[in-house]
Amino acid sequence: MTRTPPTLLSLSIDSALHHLSSFSDLSHLPDHILLDLFLRILKAGKLNEKILKLFLASGDDKVLSFIKELNIRPLVTPVLPTRCCGRHSNMAQFGIKDDDVDIVIVKDPDLKDDLKVPDGFNVDIYTKAEMDKAVGSSLTSQLFSGYSCRYYGYLVSKRKYIMSIDDDCMPAKDDKGFQVDAVAQHLFNLGNPATPLFFNTLYDPFAEGADFVRGYPFSMREGVPCALSAGLWLNLADLDAPTQALKPEQRNTRYVNAVLTVPAKAMMPLSGINIGFNRELLGPALFPGLKLTKEGKFRWETMEDVFSGMCAKVVCDHLNLGVKTGLPYVWREERGDAIQSLKKDWEGMKLMEDAVPFFESIKLPSEAANAEDCMLELAKLVKDKFGSEKNSLFIQAADAMIEWVKLWKKGASASN
Amino acid sequence: MTRTPPTLLSLSIDSALHHLSSFSDLSHLPDHILLDLFLRILKAGKLNEKILKLFLASGDDKVLSFIKELNIRPLVTPVLPTRCCGRHSNMAQFGIKDDDVDIVIVKDPDLKDDLKVPDGFNVDIYTKAEMDKAVGSSLTSQLFSGYSCRYYGYLVSKRKYIMSIDDDCMPAKDDKGFQVDAVAQHLFNLGNPATPLFFNTLYDPFAEGADFVRGYPFSMREGVPCALSAGLWLNLADLDAPTQALKPEQRNTRYVNAVLTVPAKAMMPLSGINIGFNRELLGPALFPGLKLTKEGKFRWETMEDVFSGMCAKVVCDHLNLGVKTGLPYVWREERGDAIQSLKKDWEGMKLMEDAVPFFESIKLPSEAANAEDCMLELAKLVKDKFGSEKNSLFIQAADAMIEWVKLWKKGASASN
Repeated sequence: MTRTPPTLLSLSIDSALHHLSSFSDLSHLPDHILLDLFLRILKAGKLNEKILKLFLASGDDKVLSFIKELNIRPLVTPVLPTRCCGRHSNMAQFGIKDDDVDIVIVKDPDLKDDLKVPDGFNVDIYTKAEMDKAVGSSLTSQLFSGYSCRYYGYLVSKRKYIMSIDDDCMPAKDDKGFQVDAVAQHLFNLGNPATPLFFNTLYDPFAEGADFVRGYPFSMREGVPCALSAGLWLNLADLDAPTQALKPEQRNTRYVNAVLTVPAKAMMPLSGINIGFNRELLGPALFPGLKLTKEGKFRWETMEDVFSGMCAKVVCDHLNLGVKTGLPYVWREERGDAIQSLKKDWEGMKLMEDAVPFFESIKLPSEAANAEDCMLELAKLVKDKFGSEKNSLFIQAADAMIEWVKLWKKGASASN
Repeated sequence: MTRTPPTLLSLSIDSALHHLSSFSDLSHLPDHILLDLFLRILKAGKLNEKILKLFLASGDDKVLSFIKELNIRPLVTPVLPTRCCGRHSNMAQFGIKDDDVDIVIVKDPDLKDDLKVPDGFNVDIYTKAEMDKAVGSSLTSQLFSGYSCRYYGYLVSKRKYIMSIDDDCMPAKDDKGFQVDAVAQHLFNLGNPATPLFFNTLYDPFAEGADFVRGYPFSMREGVPCALSAGLWLNLADLDAPTQALKPEQRNTRYVNAVLTVPAKAMMPLSGINIGFNRELLGPALFPGLKLTKEGKFRWETMEDVFSGMCAKVVCDHLNLGVKTGLPYVWREERGDAIQSLKKDWEGMKLMEDAVPFFESIKLPSEAANAEDCMLELAKLVKDKFGSEKNSLFIQAADAMIEWVKLWKKGASASN
């Protein structure tokens, strides 16, 4: 029996397939190879978000129409909470096109002005009217006012990955002066394993050119699924009002070119300004409802994201999922007057003194097998611990957790 | 009663004193202010390692002779383990001058060639003869052969801070092309608090231009003393032989401009290639004696530092001390053949599979109040867990811990 020897072209494609993970663009490949390579990738079951983005970025007509034909689309929903009219125009700057993604804009129900959506975008817009109709006006104001409006977008999206960037952010530049692709970096973080069980001193071992260092147990190198990617901020950092007021001139100019997994059992202050997450794994744990009594419309007056972030971290630790922090950066514009915020009686400071020891001490029962179960168990633990306190923010948060899980379950059954 | 109004000069000095922590060099200050400012700092009790280095770097004659007169010297000992002749000339490249520091060179007792110390350095050199005389030839070969020779330097130094850099390292350049001052960065890391109890997403909050992010509990912002500073490596990273052999061309080119505290309870693979530590707080926990049966003379064939690092991390967590990782980088030159090392039966891989779960599970008794106590308790726990295993590396390590603490206590009493 004779076998035809492989062609040089097919050998090249084999080799490209093998080294796919090290490609950061396809511009050096001849056009006529692109479609063949794409077909081989599909056949090998190697298509993922990162690779799909690479091919979309190639702009090759044949590849694009093939992708369209098969109805392959990245599974990401950018949720753009909007409290300030016209600000959501940042989606254009972020290079978000509705070809790639489902865009959800949620209008803060307290916001009176009209929304102005930039031309050329096909987006789903949710306003107070829709929310009231879907969940009732009482839940709308309890769960989705102010910065918390973004959670409504998390609820209604049906995509696997969500990313949310506050409306006072613009794309950042990296340390070489190139614009950061925040969507691609969040997808890279979420699409590669996290390593919460042992700390890797050279940061993300899955980043290009990186690896596990000597001493890292081989049995732990497979990692765990990454459920949450917390991005950072250049220019105006996410400081609290006292710190911002104390150092009005301080700006974050340090671009740290790294992503790392926050170790298991370590608590962190998650900021909701710039995040990506896996909705299927973690959605119910990113919940709204921790509302400070005198909460305002500036980030430093809120704590919903930090509280919800500790819930999410506890849930990740319990379910053996990972949380990454670091890249991508966004550029945060200045807004508001920290001194004015200081004049309010800020409950956020007191809250964290009680919340951190509580979250560090809890252990979820082994029966809790998914994020919904975990949140209900967490609500119980919160009520056990803080139930005797009058007007406790914690108890309000626990009630919100329960309402949120109900909404989530209803949403899940409605979409099935 | 009349009071003389303050002079402009004294007001300037007051202001400089107040903003001292934000100074990174003194070159913009007129010479005639330097000595006055230094005196005010002394009076205010604000002299620390970082500030002393600033003044030493000013090169001002009056300041330098005053510092010499008072016999103020930084409390650092660079320990330079030497297994390869002539290699310790790297101390010149690192900008280490014996004006600043005590230099200890320890010659690997297995090394036959003569040492060649570069001219112009006043160093303490320890060879097999001295070690044999001080601790006996049996302990010398048990504890101080190969890479472990550096621990002898840790033992004999009487300074507060030690730093140790392997002899295949040279100074690195930072992301702006400037040479990294590894001594200064280790001293900065050790001289500022660590924050192991809650993770700060903007890395070291004590770095210039950084701070604690929103949500960081105010009660935890004081931090804890930093006992250990683990630096990193450019060019040849600290990979194990299998990884190095698999990717022979891989070099670490990513300069990550950050220092962070490894959270409490998280274990990490400490590398001994480039470290600084507080000898008073942690010295007895950095111990030699984990020797692989077929241990060679290449870093990737050793595990003494990784094992000792896990002991140190457990001790730090127990004593409420911090471990930082990140800057400074050193440039590691290539040496050795990873493929040759692979042909040996490397016990390091198997060791970590047992060691990591063990270290993650242990809890030291509350009576253990310092590093020496902790190490003796740790030796007991190791023997309880692995005592039934024949020829266990763990049991040999536990015996070495006990011997090491004995030597340490003898050294401490001899120096009093």
